[in-house]
Amino acid sequence: MVDVDFDYAGRVSSLQERMTAEDVDIVLLSVGADLPYFTGYEAMPSERLTVFVVPSEGDAVLFVPALEAPRVDPGEFEIRPWSETESPVELAASVASSPSKVAVGDHMWSVFLTRFQRVWTTSEWTAASEITSALRIRKDDAEIDLLRRAAHAVDRVMARIPHEVRFAGRSELDVARDLADMTVEEGHDVAEFTIVAAGRNGASPHHHPGDRTIEDGDLVVCDFGGRLGGYFSDSTRTCVVGTASARQSEIHAAVLVANEAGRAAVSPGVSCEEIDRASRAVIDDAGYGPFFIHRTGHGIGLEVHEHPYVVEGNDLSLEPGMCFSVEPGIYIPDDLGVRIEDIVTCTEDGVESFNQSDRGLIGVG
Amino acid sequence: MVDVDFDYAGRVSSLQERMTAEDVDIVLLSVGADLPYFTGYEAMPSERLTVFVVPSEGDAVLFVPALEAPRVDPGEFEIRPWSETESPVELAASVASSPSKVAVGDHMWSVFLTRFQRVWTTSEWTAASEITSALRIRKDDAEIDLLRRAAHAVDRVMARIPHEVRFAGRSELDVARDLADMTVEEGHDVAEFTIVAAGRNGASPHHHPGDRTIEDGDLVVCDFGGRLGGYFSDSTRTCVVGTASARQSEIHAAVLVANEAGRAAVSPGVSCEEIDRASRAVIDDAGYGPFFIHRTGHGIGLEVHEHPYVVEGNDLSLEPGMCFSVEPGIYIPDDLGVRIEDIVTCTEDGVESFNQSDRGLIGVG
Repeated sequence: MVDVDFDYAGRVSSLQERMTAEDVDIVLLSVGADLPYFTGYEAMPSERLTVFVVPSEGDAVLFVPALEAPRVDPGEFEIRPWSETESPVELAASVASSPSKVAVGDHMWSVFLTRFQRVWTTSEWTAASEITSALRIRKDDAEIDLLRRAAHAVDRVMARIPHEVRFAGRSELDVARDLADMTVEEGHDVAEFTIVAAGRNGASPHHHPGDRTIEDGDLVVCDFGGRLGGYFSDSTRTCVVGTASARQSEIHAAVLVANEAGRAAVSPGVSCEEIDRASRAVIDDAGYGPFFIHRTGHGIGLEVHEHPYVVEGNDLSLEPGMCFSVEPGIYIPDDLGVRIEDIVTCTEDGVESFNQSDRGLIGVG
Repeated sequence: MVDVDFDYAGRVSSLQERMTAEDVDIVLLSVGADLPYFTGYEAMPSERLTVFVVPSEGDAVLFVPALEAPRVDPGEFEIRPWSETESPVELAASVASSPSKVAVGDHMWSVFLTRFQRVWTTSEWTAASEITSALRIRKDDAEIDLLRRAAHAVDRVMARIPHEVRFAGRSELDVARDLADMTVEEGHDVAEFTIVAAGRNGASPHHHPGDRTIEDGDLVVCDFGGRLGGYFSDSTRTCVVGTASARQSEIHAAVLVANEAGRAAVSPGVSCEEIDRASRAVIDDAGYGPFFIHRTGHGIGLEVHEHPYVVEGNDLSLEPGMCFSVEPGIYIPDDLGVRIEDIVTCTEDGVESFNQSDRGLIGVG
């Protein structure tokens, strides 16, 4: 496992500064990526509450189930294990009386939020990402290094595909297992997701690979990634089994130009929706506008999808250190799908694409 | 994949009857097991909201991200895909105006709950499990069949361990991978979790298997399971590398008697906390009370942990069809751990243990 130590105490101090500026009295972090961002510890999704209680001033406390305490390294933070017959919500809520504004981690289970709301009955409640995303959205050099390394590991898998992975006559699931194994072989700590969508299944952007036998002439969307030191990779290339038809090549070419246009538009001060428009205009002009059924991209870091979202309506201006996907696609129902996805970062003077593998149609056997 | 069709429309009708009885106007189900229980569809955890809106009277509607719609089979329910530039919360909330009481799925992300609360500002909010658990807690014959089959698949893995899995000189992670592979080989659709905790790591009940090399004389807690047709298995046996010391055998014997006492106490009308007390009394009497640091068990079904919880303070009376674990353990810090876990069901006249594999210390090489 790649293990990088970040300045967690410094991050919590920055959070507290923002809390003060935004009049937030308490932040409650549980499952999700905010907790590891601020502490290095990731909570297990569970009916037993783990919650990091951060007041705008003073010391933060991590409440954990007693049976999990043996494996928690609290680092610089106070840890308070709770036993099976205690109420973790009552314990955690005793840290403050009637805070006026509380921000809760986006992924905290609602069952816990409704319990906190019964104790702090007069508080205003908001999502923690409204303050944490401002800290997490710009990656520092160490984070960028991990994202780049993860992307390069996926690039090496992509380069191996035409030489090592058999598609024709095998199932999507078989190919998905090969890609997941190679994702780990090339340096990820773990493979996190693998979409292999062949033929008409390609028209479903989030298709779950299944028993469908891949056939000669199929386009196959391969979208996969893993984690390295906590940070995600996520790249997509489209393969063709045998030789592409003229129509398949034409659709792929439109997506490729859209991918290039999206990446080329990235620069400090440009808004997220302008990146989306740059990619979308190419596909609109090619006549496939109605078949590009999703946003152009999403931020990436400790989560595979996080801020900033590259979507119409998001007028956030890009800044150096923001990292996100550019992944236009065309999806023709009951027919085929094509997607080309790169993870990029906004730099001081433009863009760096972490993914560099060949973006052409990958011919496979 | 094992695919069983349940009577989803009937389940929703039962839910609506309970909603009427409990004065709940709207149930909102998103990620988590309630949604597949009522619809057969499981939402992908995502910043794109999937939500099943169930009014106490009339038709339920499933709101899904448009790009996921191609792979959703709505069955008998209305499906409403939302596009990337729509607000799913506003759409879903338009189904009702100012409901007085809303129940939200326990695992729904808090970021969505806080958004719903900004639209329905006067509603009372509660956790959906307060009404859904009464339906889910008693398994029907088809569910019991799946839980039994999943348990028997784990039993077959346990039986193979002493003959096929090498422990000494290998890492916990190596052994965990073997167990996960065998979990699938023996009939699960997927392996879901694998705890392999050797030597002093055994003292951490939820230890994550790591690089520790397993040594001669180690006790090794093996706690793993998978899903079959959506339903979980979850069983624990403790292995010894080579020959157990007298002390290791004595501790294991105490846990075994506690496991037997817990299972023997199961019968209709007995409360959950009485099962906990039956197991705990054995360990207390053996002098290891302070080292049994968790509840005796948890319900199991579409979730690996669900109601009923076998814990002091839970006076719920057992009824036929309730399925849960009995898993006492002893954890000596910096030394060792022992746990023995079976999934059982309360029957008309007592108990059936789905797990039947040898509960003795498993000698391994």
